[in-house]
Amino acid sequence: MPEGLQQSKVIFQPSGRRGYISDGESIKQASQDLGVGIEGLCGDKGTCGKCRVRIEEGVFAKYGIDSRMENLSPLNKVEKKMLTSKQQRDGYRLACQAHIRGDIVVFVPEESRLARQVVRKAAGEIAVEMKPAVRKYYVELKPATLDDTIGDWERLQAEFKKRFRLSNLAIDYQALRSLQGVIRRGNWKITVSLWMNREVIGVEPGVVEKGYGLAVDIGTTTVAAYLCGLSTGDVIATDSMMNPQVAYGEDVIARINYSMSHKDGLDVMNQAIIRGINKLAGRAAAGAGIKRSAIVDMTVVGNTCMHHIFLNVDPQYLGQSPFPPSLHRSLDIKARDLGLRISPGAYVHVLPIEAGFVGADNVGVLIAEEPYNQDDMVLIVDIGTNGELLMGNRDRIVSASCATGPAFEGAEIRYGMRAAPGAIEKIRIDPDTREVRFRVIGKDGWNTELEEVGASGICGSGIIDAAAQLFTAGVIDRTGRFNSGLSTPRLRAVQDGPEFVIAWAKETSIGQDIVVCQRDVRNIQLGKGAMYAGAKLMMRRLGLEKLDKIVLAGAFGSYIDKESAAVIGLFPDCAQEKVYAVGNAAGDGARIALLNVDKRVEADQKAREVEYLELTVEPDFEKVFTQAMWFPHMEDSFPHLKHLLPGFKQGTEKMEGRY
Amino acid sequence: MPEGLQQSKVIFQPSGRRGYISDGESIKQASQDLGVGIEGLCGDKGTCGKCRVRIEEGVFAKYGIDSRMENLSPLNKVEKKMLTSKQQRDGYRLACQAHIRGDIVVFVPEESRLARQVVRKAAGEIAVEMKPAVRKYYVELKPATLDDTIGDWERLQAEFKKRFRLSNLAIDYQALRSLQGVIRRGNWKITVSLWMNREVIGVEPGVVEKGYGLAVDIGTTTVAAYLCGLSTGDVIATDSMMNPQVAYGEDVIARINYSMSHKDGLDVMNQAIIRGINKLAGRAAAGAGIKRSAIVDMTVVGNTCMHHIFLNVDPQYLGQSPFPPSLHRSLDIKARDLGLRISPGAYVHVLPIEAGFVGADNVGVLIAEEPYNQDDMVLIVDIGTNGELLMGNRDRIVSASCATGPAFEGAEIRYGMRAAPGAIEKIRIDPDTREVRFRVIGKDGWNTELEEVGASGICGSGIIDAAAQLFTAGVIDRTGRFNSGLSTPRLRAVQDGPEFVIAWAKETSIGQDIVVCQRDVRNIQLGKGAMYAGAKLMMRRLGLEKLDKIVLAGAFGSYIDKESAAVIGLFPDCAQEKVYAVGNAAGDGARIALLNVDKRVEADQKAREVEYLELTVEPDFEKVFTQAMWFPHMEDSFPHLKHLLPGFKQGTEKMEGRY
Repeated sequence: MPEGLQQSKVIFQPSGRRGYISDGESIKQASQDLGVGIEGLCGDKGTCGKCRVRIEEGVFAKYGIDSRMENLSPLNKVEKKMLTSKQQRDGYRLACQAHIRGDIVVFVPEESRLARQVVRKAAGEIAVEMKPAVRKYYVELKPATLDDTIGDWERLQAEFKKRFRLSNLAIDYQALRSLQGVIRRGNWKITVSLWMNREVIGVEPGVVEKGYGLAVDIGTTTVAAYLCGLSTGDVIATDSMMNPQVAYGEDVIARINYSMSHKDGLDVMNQAIIRGINKLAGRAAAGAGIKRSAIVDMTVVGNTCMHHIFLNVDPQYLGQSPFPPSLHRSLDIKARDLGLRISPGAYVHVLPIEAGFVGADNVGVLIAEEPYNQDDMVLIVDIGTNGELLMGNRDRIVSASCATGPAFEGAEIRYGMRAAPGAIEKIRIDPDTREVRFRVIGKDGWNTELEEVGASGICGSGIIDAAAQLFTAGVIDRTGRFNSGLSTPRLRAVQDGPEFVIAWAKETSIGQDIVVCQRDVRNIQLGKGAMYAGAKLMMRRLGLEKLDKIVLAGAFGSYIDKESAAVIGLFPDCAQEKVYAVGNAAGDGARIALLNVDKRVEADQKAREVEYLELTVEPDFEKVFTQAMWFPHMEDSFPHLKHLLPGFKQGTEKMEGRY
Repeated sequence: MPEGLQQSKVIFQPSGRRGYISDGESIKQASQDLGVGIEGLCGDKGTCGKCRVRIEEGVFAKYGIDSRMENLSPLNKVEKKMLTSKQQRDGYRLACQAHIRGDIVVFVPEESRLARQVVRKAAGEIAVEMKPAVRKYYVELKPATLDDTIGDWERLQAEFKKRFRLSNLAIDYQALRSLQGVIRRGNWKITVSLWMNREVIGVEPGVVEKGYGLAVDIGTTTVAAYLCGLSTGDVIATDSMMNPQVAYGEDVIARINYSMSHKDGLDVMNQAIIRGINKLAGRAAAGAGIKRSAIVDMTVVGNTCMHHIFLNVDPQYLGQSPFPPSLHRSLDIKARDLGLRISPGAYVHVLPIEAGFVGADNVGVLIAEEPYNQDDMVLIVDIGTNGELLMGNRDRIVSASCATGPAFEGAEIRYGMRAAPGAIEKIRIDPDTREVRFRVIGKDGWNTELEEVGASGICGSGIIDAAAQLFTAGVIDRTGRFNSGLSTPRLRAVQDGPEFVIAWAKETSIGQDIVVCQRDVRNIQLGKGAMYAGAKLMMRRLGLEKLDKIVLAGAFGSYIDKESAAVIGLFPDCAQEKVYAVGNAAGDGARIALLNVDKRVEADQKAREVEYLELTVEPDFEKVFTQAMWFPHMEDSFPHLKHLLPGFKQGTEKMEGRY
């Protein structure tokens, strides 16, 4: 019997989910088949180590299963590297590496469980004139008679011409299909959904006043959807989910690689996001008490890679110089052509992109923030898995994309995790005692005030805090190196090098100390250095000495501590009161485009006017980047940070004491 | 276990096809599941009696089956009516009525087997200026560089604007998906398929000169497809098949009823025709040695009901006064939206329809024959399962539809069959001896010259001949009644009334005499009467005394004997040399529209100018129809038939002798 036809019984604990799985599948695949969420950020390459699971051995009579380690493929090189000797002895495996050969019981430890994120990309207030693409028209028709047997569609066209002076209308095929029945159910009185005053995309019997639209922001990690009333502009429901493509790669490069290394990789990821958006649409509609078919319009933003995969367009050329996209202008496309289940005749408006790595999400930010209408020289930073930067004012705007890496989202950080319950989100280190206080998502108060703390990792805002506080407390120096001379039990040397304990094992739910290690600090430096270097090269291009304003877009921007961000040098010096968080501006842009078609035109125009700066080919890129890796920077001065870094001096000379 | 989950073994003989069938299915459904062709023209209502099969009883050890009559539902009322006592004793059942309850062996007698039709709707010569909707453009692009990273699609648009002065182009979503890969495989040299100078519907690497189109004529009974080169206009391949919807009803009314009485009836019939056209497209492409994806355009004609079902639009209102269609203008629609598998971005152009019962097939005839460019007053008769009529000249044209019924296609005729091998297609009856000569499709010569005749039924042209010859030989009189006083063994009285033997059992392959009975003659009278009455009412509307020309369109028109048709009074008097058969003019119209977009515009215009005459509401309709049922007519004179009907006088008085 060929491999794959033989099946084995697999049980996941503690959820108890079970089923028969074809031999040869990985535990990770089995978990997906059976609906068990296991963490994983590296696209199953085995490099993130997030999917550690423990194999339970023995005869479980209750389940009729004899679970043995021999029923899995042998420990491979990747696992030997990622698992400690003790973990190996204790029966730990990487779910993405271990392949099923027989019956098995798998325990998923808490830190490996995929928790539902709590960070929602919330919908803020936006001011926009209502001018939706889809409008409802109520029409009363004269019934057909033997003397007047023109087609029902031509009858409707004639009425539109007469009453609304709209001619040359087209009709969507699905709307056409339903037309005759609807006309008769409505007793020749119907409501027409008309798109762009051009095409009838839906018909309903009788009077139907309300139409709805869905604005979707496809982030590399999080997908957010806003259900809006098209006559009022109100957000009726908001929902978000982890981008299901995370299973195939943590960042855009990993996903491009996945699409290139798997024959049906693009299809798999496309189907994943389409199913995800369908789920969001369904949940949002259910939450608002409407049918999903009442959603008659949709707008979508996302970075260039998300944009291409959403359209099922091969993203491989985005990953190869000169990085040309498949198309950069906006696109109106039938939702059904993409497999999206909203009103059968509805279009999806996909916002334009700026360049290879500056996508439709950035265009969303652009039309939401409108730097092109301002005198102030602004830097807009959208920190997602990739960092996207806009800089300029009404005279000129440049954009850039920087590979911040996933550190700010908790990945490639030893105890990093997403912003889910149990995540340490805020950290304070006493500069004298180096004692640590922290707050955990889902708990009300600092760790020192709680009986049970239950931390399970550190999320993005906690990581920024950790770096800033370790720096201001003198635990790490300007180059990011641990100061080994300190006498505190929290700083200790282990096999891999020095590490600093943020939470003691007793304060955690995972039974281990949660630490920040040297590699974690390096990853933070790489991320913040890329961001800073990008901003600096943009200033150089624009001939700027200083910035008037910094706008932090993206959910992450709303959660981080602005001062911590400034102290580590996430961006160039700026007055603290001129640093704003605006929430999910990309999503706001999607909503704005949903509600006002003029803004769609504006998006297409402005996106073309933005000058894209390919950072990696700029002269001195390496040098600018290396200097930016220092805390806060190797050479630049930060006049606005004096109160936060007392006694700090610019320059590369070794400083005494704290820094 | 609920019904439907239990399965039984079913074996068909003599084909030997076998399989497991869910209990509750009819033998007819089982035959379709297993690919066995069983005749049937009544949409499984049990009224045509064509699907007689014999149940073989006994234990067939070889097949491991114990076939018992008890394994079928008991003989029902319909079967008791349609099967003689002997047939019931011999184990005959109607395949559409008998439902499976256990293992069974079914023998399908020759007369019940669905033979592949030999009548092809052949493609005649047409003269048309080449102006196809889809043209190929060869384009060389400048490769992207880091200084020039506009989207590939925008790059292509810019090149079209520059080289061909074509701007504001759109691109099909599927073409967009393939664009990047094609550009790179072609090393920045590609061929673009452009639809209506508006939309890129396909891209191919390198130079591709030839594009193909498919013209499809969906007849109620036969579907024909013509594969044409879009640069030359040549017909590269022609193919046809029985309309697979025949299983759901023999004529348009039966299909409308099927769609109304079955919840998924419309979907089932739509899928059947879509699958059928896909099969034709595949076969035609294979025959021409091209890929089906090289078919970049398609045109479709069909009567209003076929048109609606093809579009998956509910046809029910076509069957209810005032019979308004869903739409009457032409429609361009993505082939993929209909499930058609040709080039993924291709459109289908569906020709306009004239009125409730005068469809796109008639518009095809209209643009092929162009009566609007002629001085002669012409009657164009398209005889399919429905009769469609056009009458007029450059001044004025009227159209009408008449319910000829399926008699001319061999249905509702006791020994009627389709024009397949074994069908009697030509009949001559000696006026003195009443001896019969006939020719059989697939045999070379008259029956009297053959050793083995092997007739199995009478097809449409044979039926017209039979009526005409029985009339001129004095076997039936002007009212259609059999002349019981004749002394010939061929004319005999049976339980149902008189019948005339065309072929003796020994001349057949079915072991029974093939006869024409009184009911057969009545059905012919109903059909020809409807056609004649329609033409007469149209002449009245136009104020005409006589016709200059009669054009017989449709495959049937090519096969019937013009003199026989004239003698029975299928249409008003006309000089015999002015009666032409033009073959499948509807299909010609589809080809013309495929090759020249101006003719599409002309079709839309002319279709609107044709006046539709709803025959059934005309004053005196009943009287006109009743008079037209006589051979050749109750009152009208036929100066041009003198040589064919020597001694014949008009009028209702009883005539002596022959008539």
